[in-house]
Amino acid sequence: MPPNHTVPSQFLARFEYICRLTTRTRPTRCFYQRTAQPNLLRRGLHSQAGPKHKSNVHWATLASRSAVLVGLAAGSLQLFHETPVDRNQQKTVDTKVKTFRLAEVRQHDGSSQNPWVIRGTSVYDITDWVAAHPGGDVILTAAGGSIEPFWDIFTIHKRPDVYEILEEYKIGTVDEADLEDGRVPQGAIVDPFQNDPARDPQLITHTACPRNAETPQSALKDFITPNELFYVRNHFWVPDVKGEDHEITIEMVDGTERKYTVKELKERFPQHKITTTLQCAGNRRRSMTDAAGATKGLQWKVGAISTAEWEGVRLVDVLADAGLSPKDLPEDAQHVQFSAMEAYGASIPIRKAIDPWGDVLLAFSMNGAELPRDHGYPVRVVVPGTVAARSVKWLSQITISPDESPTQWQQRDYKSFCPSDVKNPPWERARSIQEMPVTSAITHVETPRGPEGERQTISAEGYAYSGGGARDHPVDGGQTWHEAELLDNQAQAKGSRAWCWKRWRYQGPTPAECSGSPEGKTRLVVKATDEAYNTQPQTHESIFNARGNLATAWDQAEVPT
Amino acid sequence: MPPNHTVPSQFLARFEYICRLTTRTRPTRCFYQRTAQPNLLRRGLHSQAGPKHKSNVHWATLASRSAVLVGLAAGSLQLFHETPVDRNQQKTVDTKVKTFRLAEVRQHDGSSQNPWVIRGTSVYDITDWVAAHPGGDVILTAAGGSIEPFWDIFTIHKRPDVYEILEEYKIGTVDEADLEDGRVPQGAIVDPFQNDPARDPQLITHTACPRNAETPQSALKDFITPNELFYVRNHFWVPDVKGEDHEITIEMVDGTERKYTVKELKERFPQHKITTTLQCAGNRRRSMTDAAGATKGLQWKVGAISTAEWEGVRLVDVLADAGLSPKDLPEDAQHVQFSAMEAYGASIPIRKAIDPWGDVLLAFSMNGAELPRDHGYPVRVVVPGTVAARSVKWLSQITISPDESPTQWQQRDYKSFCPSDVKNPPWERARSIQEMPVTSAITHVETPRGPEGERQTISAEGYAYSGGGARDHPVDGGQTWHEAELLDNQAQAKGSRAWCWKRWRYQGPTPAECSGSPEGKTRLVVKATDEAYNTQPQTHESIFNARGNLATAWDQAEVPT
Repeated sequence: MPPNHTVPSQFLARFEYICRLTTRTRPTRCFYQRTAQPNLLRRGLHSQAGPKHKSNVHWATLASRSAVLVGLAAGSLQLFHETPVDRNQQKTVDTKVKTFRLAEVRQHDGSSQNPWVIRGTSVYDITDWVAAHPGGDVILTAAGGSIEPFWDIFTIHKRPDVYEILEEYKIGTVDEADLEDGRVPQGAIVDPFQNDPARDPQLITHTACPRNAETPQSALKDFITPNELFYVRNHFWVPDVKGEDHEITIEMVDGTERKYTVKELKERFPQHKITTTLQCAGNRRRSMTDAAGATKGLQWKVGAISTAEWEGVRLVDVLADAGLSPKDLPEDAQHVQFSAMEAYGASIPIRKAIDPWGDVLLAFSMNGAELPRDHGYPVRVVVPGTVAARSVKWLSQITISPDESPTQWQQRDYKSFCPSDVKNPPWERARSIQEMPVTSAITHVETPRGPEGERQTISAEGYAYSGGGARDHPVDGGQTWHEAELLDNQAQAKGSRAWCWKRWRYQGPTPAECSGSPEGKTRLVVKATDEAYNTQPQTHESIFNARGNLATAWDQAEVPT
Repeated sequence: MPPNHTVPSQFLARFEYICRLTTRTRPTRCFYQRTAQPNLLRRGLHSQAGPKHKSNVHWATLASRSAVLVGLAAGSLQLFHETPVDRNQQKTVDTKVKTFRLAEVRQHDGSSQNPWVIRGTSVYDITDWVAAHPGGDVILTAAGGSIEPFWDIFTIHKRPDVYEILEEYKIGTVDEADLEDGRVPQGAIVDPFQNDPARDPQLITHTACPRNAETPQSALKDFITPNELFYVRNHFWVPDVKGEDHEITIEMVDGTERKYTVKELKERFPQHKITTTLQCAGNRRRSMTDAAGATKGLQWKVGAISTAEWEGVRLVDVLADAGLSPKDLPEDAQHVQFSAMEAYGASIPIRKAIDPWGDVLLAFSMNGAELPRDHGYPVRVVVPGTVAARSVKWLSQITISPDESPTQWQQRDYKSFCPSDVKNPPWERARSIQEMPVTSAITHVETPRGPEGERQTISAEGYAYSGGGARDHPVDGGQTWHEAELLDNQAQAKGSRAWCWKRWRYQGPTPAECSGSPEGKTRLVVKATDEAYNTQPQTHESIFNARGNLATAWDQAEVPT
């Protein structure tokens, strides 16, 4: 395809083209749209934040970068391959000469017209790369300083092909006057977590940066979890946001956009309250590891689950205002993607988003208080019944799309597999976790001593939860099953779906083999059954997956003797 | 409460009263409404067909029957108790004198103003009872002949309190000239099944009257089950219906009614096609019985499940036309009750009925052919994803109600319980089965012999099904799990929910302990995981219930050696 100063007519005949950058294993879909001028294309990118228009590209520029036209099937979208040849050619320019002081680099921060980053002691001008960056604008968070602390979080970057892309943009090195032992000093590197909020020390911390901490046993006794003890699952730092002026963008499948400030959302749409449990896909992962072998991920015990009353506006109302009519859905409107300010993103099926009983909220408050920063201030999504990973915090964009969110949290991390798929799980074929399966847990068990010091009764409590709706009869016992008492039956308004856990309580006699026999170990086992009569698997072995997701086997606890 | 010729003012102050007939353990709710005349009440009955107005009752008549006013709590509904004293008093009239020829009894059939029935050799005029009959008008089917063949089906009648009620209406005995050996001869008794259709002999019959038969293994291999091999689950005889003139009544919570003929339904509403699997709650009951002990009910193997393409009109469209707006649902509109012509009835939650993706149909055709009589001709309900017991055949009435259907099939038969609740299950507390839990079954397994007569490979097939939506990876194996190949991935239109089973196929090497060892028995085990990652329970023991419902444990088959 020779360079050409006018966009070829067959290009103009179609509206949209898809570009697959061949040098990356996770393809990013660029697209080009016609403009009013025949020699200009508008370049956009399907990032995790959905399609974004970035810049106008002269056809000649595109052609000179060796864009290879690979097909012109009538009526279909057009595939480009940008060959790496391009970049190798561009790399030859004088990149080894210039040096920059750190003070100068810092001026090229995220607000600059020409953002720069440092890797090692090299300096890169990423201005031209930002639009093509698969992760979107988040790359600007690193601008003005070192990119390495961010790559410690976004570890997907630590590979040769990514290093190679970055090398294209090298403009020089850090001045030796600013190096210590040949390195950029620690203090000169921005800590992205420096503005994270203070947390309650009662939370059981798994990782500090990003903050991941579970609800302590004492708070699992309550139906509503206090905000400060609600479990925290952060993938990154906590964004520092401007509150009511914060804007979210809603983009339709046809690329049209509508922006709303938080203030506007609060004022223009009716407020709704939904009480729902949120649960991490990894809750109880530790018990799967203990029972069935090593799993990758935070080793949550039973506290990666909490319940709150959320207040906000219904997503379905806002989407309708933005132009998405549930009655007349475009064929392509299959998924609703949510993007967070820090970088996180996930999606839910359109059906859940606009289900009149789906109760998906854009929430501003939690248990009557302003949304805490750790839980998404100023606005987050709350998707009842669905894995909490889809309840995106610090919401910045909503994109209606034919596809699921392209992020790793949708495409990889929150999936489960056949127990035999340990080494090479079928990432693409496996479904992303959405509605949560039925589970239950024992949070407390005791055998109080009687007047003679004997143990006569077992007293236990815990919770049961299912994403599919109200659930009932968790039953516990050993060889025989007993029905536990369910608390929280009045928690839901009549007619509305039950999105919450139900705490249970069991009191019964100590089994004969337990009392009087100091060696006799008795185990209390709990399993729950949900509204569709689904019940929990008996063992973790039968649902083992190397990610340790959905560790929903019968829970067990040793009865003290 | 003394007899009174004017309805007491406190009665007129309320609109509706509830009457509980104290002599019956299954309460029937009669209600009384005011009329324009101060001394008349309008009597109605909440039957399985919903509230029906039956007759005007003079207050004095009601009072003279010793209706006992038991409370007048302000604002609440009013409870009456009709004491059995009444009936004992009425029983004294001359009932032993008159004799009737069978020819005369036959004239008092269901179309007569004064329907009679025979029990033993006694004759009863049930004219006054029909309105109060808890089962509704179906009692008229027996009129003009013996009621006993019907009580053999509706066995709930075989108890002293029911006999006692019938005795109130005795008017005489059958003339001895018509008796043989002191009994009414067999030929004189109507066989309600005499008009049942002919069936394909390949169906595996469990009971002939009513007809209950499962799909043979040969037909379980196909995605679509041929109409003549679709499993049949009838609770009664097959009604003989007049086709397009057949009328269904839709009753709103406020008692208003709208009637539609089948012809009108077909002409006035858009036609839709839905392919869905229907499954009996008792499918695989036999395996629960074998594994965990005796269960009550038809001992289905794996064939009480079939799949068809149904065509009809959407329930939600028809309800909207009848006045039920999904946007403005009355608070009391909680359930949609369906009544069949023969007597059967069941209900679904309103949410399922009007869910835009619920796909509930009033179906007229099955796999492109007119609905066969065994499957509900001329119109049946099809409730995808829900236990087939709610897909009521031979539909006659739809009732919007605050309550579930009062029939035994909603209140008792289709429920499951804690394994320990064998003797006295908590009928009222247990939920009626609606959405189906995930299940799977092995329908065929073989180990074909190689050239040396050795068995080298296992070849197996079966199905997986879940009511909650698309399902994936049934995995099978022994100590290790292997993922089976799922067929039928293209079966659903894009965007629509997956209401169908997925057939699976597995081919793998024969395990070492199987080949070469004539004694070594190897079992193939299958379990499926659904869209919400719910999976099947490992054993039937853990989900055992005396009804044998939802026998969804891992399926097993011995591998031939």
